[in-house]
Amino acid sequence: MDLDENAALEAVLASFADTPDDRTRQILEAITRHLHALVRELRPSQREWEQAIAYLTEVGHRSDGTRQEFVMLSDVLGVSTVVETMNSDPLSTPGTVLGPFHQTESPRRELGDSLVGDSSGVACAVSGTVTDEDGKPLAAASVDVWQCNEHGFYDVQEPAVQAAGNGRGAFTTDANGQFWFNTVVPSHYPIPTDGPVGRLLAASRRHPYRPAHIHFIAASPGHQTVTTHAFVAESPYLDSDAVFAVKSALIIGLAECSDPAEAARLRLPSPFRRAQFDIRLARRER
Amino acid sequence: MDLDENAALEAVLASFADTPDDRTRQILEAITRHLHALVRELRPSQREWEQAIAYLTEVGHRSDGTRQEFVMLSDVLGVSTVVETMNSDPLSTPGTVLGPFHQTESPRRELGDSLVGDSSGVACAVSGTVTDEDGKPLAAASVDVWQCNEHGFYDVQEPAVQAAGNGRGAFTTDANGQFWFNTVVPSHYPIPTDGPVGRLLAASRRHPYRPAHIHFIAASPGHQTVTTHAFVAESPYLDSDAVFAVKSALIIGLAECSDPAEAARLRLPSPFRRAQFDIRLARRER
Repeated sequence: MDLDENAALEAVLASFADTPDDRTRQILEAITRHLHALVRELRPSQREWEQAIAYLTEVGHRSDGTRQEFVMLSDVLGVSTVVETMNSDPLSTPGTVLGPFHQTESPRRELGDSLVGDSSGVACAVSGTVTDEDGKPLAAASVDVWQCNEHGFYDVQEPAVQAAGNGRGAFTTDANGQFWFNTVVPSHYPIPTDGPVGRLLAASRRHPYRPAHIHFIAASPGHQTVTTHAFVAESPYLDSDAVFAVKSALIIGLAECSDPAEAARLRLPSPFRRAQFDIRLARRER
Repeated sequence: MDLDENAALEAVLASFADTPDDRTRQILEAITRHLHALVRELRPSQREWEQAIAYLTEVGHRSDGTRQEFVMLSDVLGVSTVVETMNSDPLSTPGTVLGPFHQTESPRRELGDSLVGDSSGVACAVSGTVTDEDGKPLAAASVDVWQCNEHGFYDVQEPAVQAAGNGRGAFTTDANGQFWFNTVVPSHYPIPTDGPVGRLLAASRRHPYRPAHIHFIAASPGHQTVTTHAFVAESPYLDSDAVFAVKSALIIGLAECSDPAEAARLRLPSPFRRAQFDIRLARRER
């Protein structure tokens, strides 16, 4: 009892001494040390501590089945991109942040299907090959894709306008490791600013925009799963992504194609855009 | 783009450079630095990061109008007691943690009233004087009191059993700075273990018990508000409070009184216990 700041830290660390799982103990001790260091640096007033409690509570309350405000908080503080980068294998396509909108399962679609139910927006054909770290194609790999529409909204953000699953698709690569689908060119967009993370950005005069991108999660048995984006080369905000997630290797050009025969073959209007995004998966054990 | 761990930290810190409010910028920068240091020490897997997001979200979801799981998390990590200690003025009665159950307003009561609606438990008369830092009594000071019952439960934890406001009272000191009320001796008790904070304690083999105590918030215009407890000297767990909040100056003895006349005067059964807890408030500006 009568713990000063140092004694309080030692007492909390000692309280974790009997934690049976080593990793759990390591995590609890590290969180305690860094949290106490933060508090000792900032010396918050009681009112600031209460504001912090209220803020975190609100972040929790704004997180539900279709929106994850804690993921957004991790994103805008750069934590998500650091964790993703730490876990990226150099032999894989670089990973980037999961983002807050991968909360719903993508509808299963056939190769060549469109992600979107209507024809508004600029039509785009996307294709690619999933390979192992040596460039050998991986057949039957799963490719989960999700993106916002041409106005910058995901299906779950405007359920009255978009059908559930719009802009999403779960594909399986063919015998040559290839996948292909139709979609519309996604827009750059602001992350949702009507919650506590939006207030954080406003308080620091940061813009909330992300450059246009398509999300991918590629997975194949025996290989490391890659969570990443394909970024649209012509998009604004590639140099100031609100969540610090852009990697140059992930930027793809969207070439215009005005060959009516090719458009007809792909069941797209002419002209359309086309993009290629190959994904390399490192082996799980090495 | 293409940010490694160091560059990511620098980019996030730079993003806060235009924050107009200095304290806000200081807080955001410190949170960012310590959070990145934590992540770089632990090197969490993607799955561990997802578990952390899910854990924090659950802590938010378990916090509502009558329970504050984020306060409990701050409490069991020793953060609350450090913040309270930092903000305690040495000329005031030592502060200690607010705790998660000060969510509802205490019913206004007259001096001498009982906090509790029924007569089960060991009757106890509590009195004290609120003074300034020189020991001069403070008339018309507010004294907000709340405690659990003899079984260790606050009213909001068992609304089917206890009436709202049971164990709570908002008093005003008389012309001599004195307050007095009747109650029952509170029990030691476990903090709620049916949520994510309970799982943290279980995972680290920590017990969830707090020594028996009565909460006080004393306030008077021109003086610093004190949030504190009176701890019951005979209680177990004074040396291992789950939230690290015990201070020796806050421990009070509960003397037995078997004078029937005194019991009758106080409208209590005989024998009863009596306790004195004086509260000193430092001046706000010095």
